[in-house]
Amino acid sequence: MTTNTRAQQTINTDRLMASLEELGAIGAYHDEDADVMGVRRLALSPEDAEGRRLVRKWFEEAGLTASTDAIGNTYADRMGLDPDLSPVMSGSHIDSVPTGGKFDGALGVLGALEVIRTLNDHDITTRRPLTIAFFTDEEGCRFGTDMLGSAVATGRIPLEQAYALTDADGKSVKDELAAIGFLGDEPVGQRRPAAFIECHVEQGPSLIHEGFDLGAVTGVQGISWRKLTITGASAHAGATPMSFRKDPGLAAAKINCRIHEMCASGEYGPDMRATMGVITPEPGMINVIPGRVTATVDLRNPDDDAMRRAEADLDAYQQEIAEQLQVTIDSQQTARTPAVAFDEAVIAAVEAAARVQGLKCRRILAGAGHDAQEWSTVCKTAMIFTPGLHDGISHNPRELSTPKHCADAVNTLLSMILALSDEAGNA
Amino acid sequence: MTTNTRAQQTINTDRLMASLEELGAIGAYHDEDADVMGVRRLALSPEDAEGRRLVRKWFEEAGLTASTDAIGNTYADRMGLDPDLSPVMSGSHIDSVPTGGKFDGALGVLGALEVIRTLNDHDITTRRPLTIAFFTDEEGCRFGTDMLGSAVATGRIPLEQAYALTDADGKSVKDELAAIGFLGDEPVGQRRPAAFIECHVEQGPSLIHEGFDLGAVTGVQGISWRKLTITGASAHAGATPMSFRKDPGLAAAKINCRIHEMCASGEYGPDMRATMGVITPEPGMINVIPGRVTATVDLRNPDDDAMRRAEADLDAYQQEIAEQLQVTIDSQQTARTPAVAFDEAVIAAVEAAARVQGLKCRRILAGAGHDAQEWSTVCKTAMIFTPGLHDGISHNPRELSTPKHCADAVNTLLSMILALSDEAGNA
Repeated sequence: MTTNTRAQQTINTDRLMASLEELGAIGAYHDEDADVMGVRRLALSPEDAEGRRLVRKWFEEAGLTASTDAIGNTYADRMGLDPDLSPVMSGSHIDSVPTGGKFDGALGVLGALEVIRTLNDHDITTRRPLTIAFFTDEEGCRFGTDMLGSAVATGRIPLEQAYALTDADGKSVKDELAAIGFLGDEPVGQRRPAAFIECHVEQGPSLIHEGFDLGAVTGVQGISWRKLTITGASAHAGATPMSFRKDPGLAAAKINCRIHEMCASGEYGPDMRATMGVITPEPGMINVIPGRVTATVDLRNPDDDAMRRAEADLDAYQQEIAEQLQVTIDSQQTARTPAVAFDEAVIAAVEAAARVQGLKCRRILAGAGHDAQEWSTVCKTAMIFTPGLHDGISHNPRELSTPKHCADAVNTLLSMILALSDEAGNA
Repeated sequence: MTTNTRAQQTINTDRLMASLEELGAIGAYHDEDADVMGVRRLALSPEDAEGRRLVRKWFEEAGLTASTDAIGNTYADRMGLDPDLSPVMSGSHIDSVPTGGKFDGALGVLGALEVIRTLNDHDITTRRPLTIAFFTDEEGCRFGTDMLGSAVATGRIPLEQAYALTDADGKSVKDELAAIGFLGDEPVGQRRPAAFIECHVEQGPSLIHEGFDLGAVTGVQGISWRKLTITGASAHAGATPMSFRKDPGLAAAKINCRIHEMCASGEYGPDMRATMGVITPEPGMINVIPGRVTATVDLRNPDDDAMRRAEADLDAYQQEIAEQLQVTIDSQQTARTPAVAFDEAVIAAVEAAARVQGLKCRRILAGAGHDAQEWSTVCKTAMIFTPGLHDGISHNPRELSTPKHCADAVNTLLSMILALSDEAGNA
C-alpha cells in the first residue's frame, strides 16, 4: 500500500446511495400525507439495533476493527502508516426522530464508510490512522438528552448520569444498551482524535436556495430558551372596555413582534434568530380575553456576547410590557447552551477541498445540535453540510438530498480526510 | 286601588335578595377554585324546569295570571286602569351558563316580580297593564342560539326553526320544552308591549370601578367575529435564517397588535373593542416555526358605520401582512350582528328615575347580548345595569352584586315602570 495524492480519487456514488437506501429501509414507514417513506429508528429501539448491526457488519466487511464503548458508541479503526499518531475521526449517528428521513445522521456515518471503501478500492493508506464511528442517541427524542453518546465520550456528561436516563416507559439507557447488545467493553473517554469531521444534511434552506453545492460549517449557534407564563385578567370581550383590560395575549404578541425586530435591527449580529413556537391562551375562546398565556421564546446566536445582550434586552422589554399592560410575566430559562466555534484551519480545509473539486461552497452556521460540537471540545473539528431539497426540510419523511449533493459532500470529506491524515503534529 | 305617586314607594330589599337566593339554590354547585356556590341551570334542563316552576308559582302568588307561549316564554299579566292600553313589560331569563352565578338573568326576572309585589303592598294600580316575564334559553349554551325565546316572540327567528335546534345529545328544543312541561298554548308573536325595560348585571367593570350606582344602557354593540387561518411554512427554529421564514405566528401577533392600535386610535369611535381570544400555532413546539396558526378576532362597536370601516381596514391590513410575511390568510366571518340603539326617551327615563332617588347613573353600552335587544325591534326599550363586584365578573360563580346595588336598580325599575305605565299613547 502506498500513500497517494488526494484529488485523483472519487467515491462510488451508487454504492453510497445504495447503502443509504438499505439502512433507510430499517424502521421505514409510509407517511400518508406526503406519500413518501419515512424512518422511525429511535435510539436503542429494535430498529436502531438492527441498523447498528448492519453498519457494524459493513465496518467489518471494509476490513476495519469495530469496537463499542460503554455508552454504545461504535468505532471502527483503520491503520495508518504512522500508527503512533492520533487518528482522524469521522462519523455521526444512525438513530432518528420518530418521523425522520433517510439522511439525517446516516449520511455522516455512511459517508465516512464510503470514504474508507474508496481508500480500500485504491489501496490507499493514510499517514494517520482513521476512525469512523456512530454515536448513541444523538436525537435525544427517547431519553431526553441529545448528543448523548458523544457527550459521554468527550466528558461533558458522566457515564452514570447517562445510564440513569429513562424513557417514557421507565426503561433506562443502561438496560436498553444491554438489551440490544451494545453495552460495550471499551471504556469511555479514551478516544482523543487529531481532528473530527462530520458530514450532515443542512436541515435548513440556505444552501439549496442560494445555489451552493455544500457548506463549510463555522460553528453551532448558542441556544437560549425561555418559557413565559403571562398572567392578566380573563374578562368578557364585549363587556370590558379597552382601558380595563390586562390582556396577556397582547403581551405575547408584542414580545413576538419585538424578538423579530431585534433580529432585523442587526444590533445582536447578523445571525440572531428568534422564534415564538408556543402560544397558548387560556381559556382560548373567541369572546373571552385570555387570563393567562403560556408562550416560548427560542433565541439563537453564534456570538455569545450578542446572545447575552439580547437576553438582557428582552428581559427589560418584558418588564416594560408587563408594566404597560398590567400583566405579570414569569420568565423561566429552560435551556441555555453557549455557541461553539469550529476550528478555523479545518473550516478552511473544507473550503480548499471544495475549491479543488470545483464546488460552490459557503460558510454556514449549524442551526441544530450535532455530535461534532461535542468532539470540538477535545480536538479540532468542523462539519460539511449538504443541501436538502424542499427548503432543506429535515426531521421529516420529505427530507431529501440528491445523489449529486451527497457525492459532493462525501468527495469533500474524502479530500479532507486525506489532507488531515497527512498532517504531522502531536500524537 | 288607586293610582299613586311614584317616588314614595321603595321595594323590599330583603324579600328581593331572599328570592334571588332561593332561585339561586336551584342548580347550585360548589366551585372548588373560588370556594363559592355557582349555578348550573342550562336551558330546558331539569334545573331550569324547577326554577321555572318556582318563579311561575311566585307570579301566581303575586296575583298575576301566568301563561306560557309555544316557545316556553312565560308571561304574567297585571290589570291596568285602562285595560285597552298595551302593557309595559319587564323581564329577563332564568337559564344560566354551565358555570354561572345567581344574578345574570335572575335579577331581571325577580326584580320585575319585586316591583309587582311592591305595587301590591301599596295597593297601586297602574294606568297601563303590566307584564312580567321570563324568556327561554337566553344564554344559547345548550342549543347554540342565544336570546332564543325573545327572538321567536318578536319574530326574528321562526318557531319551527327554533323547535328544530338540538343539543349535543340530539335532543330538540320542542321535545325538551314538552318534557319539562313548558310547551305552552299561547301563540308566539302576539305580545306587543308599549315599552320593555330589563334590569341586568353589567357583566363588565365600568360601573364598579367608576363608582356609579347604576347604568342607563344606551344600546348593544354590533359584533363582528372572524376566524383566521394563517398558513406559512413550518421550519426548524435553529436552521432557518430569518429571511427565509414564513411565520404565521408573527402574522397573528401583528394583527393582534393592530386591532389594539385601531381601538386606541379613536378612528372607529370611542367604543370600539377588539379581542384575539384564540391563537393556536401548529405544531406548537418551542423549536419549530409554526406552519399554521388559527386565530380569532372579536370586534365590537355600537356604531355600525365605524364597524364597517374597521372591518374593511382590518381586511386591508391582513392583506398587507400576508404579502409582507409571505403567508396566506383565510379570513372567515363567523358572526355578524348589527348594533342596537335603545330608545332615547326610555334611556332618559332611566336617568330621571335614578336622579330622583339620588343615585349616580351613567350611560353605558351593553357588551353582551340581552333579551331587551330582541324586544327593541317591536317596542321602545332600554335596560338598567347594576354594578358587579370583582370587576363585574359574570358567567362565573364569583358573580356578585350587593343588596344595595340590586335595590338601587330595582327601585329605579319601579320608578320607570310607574312612569312608563302612566303614559298615554297608542294602545
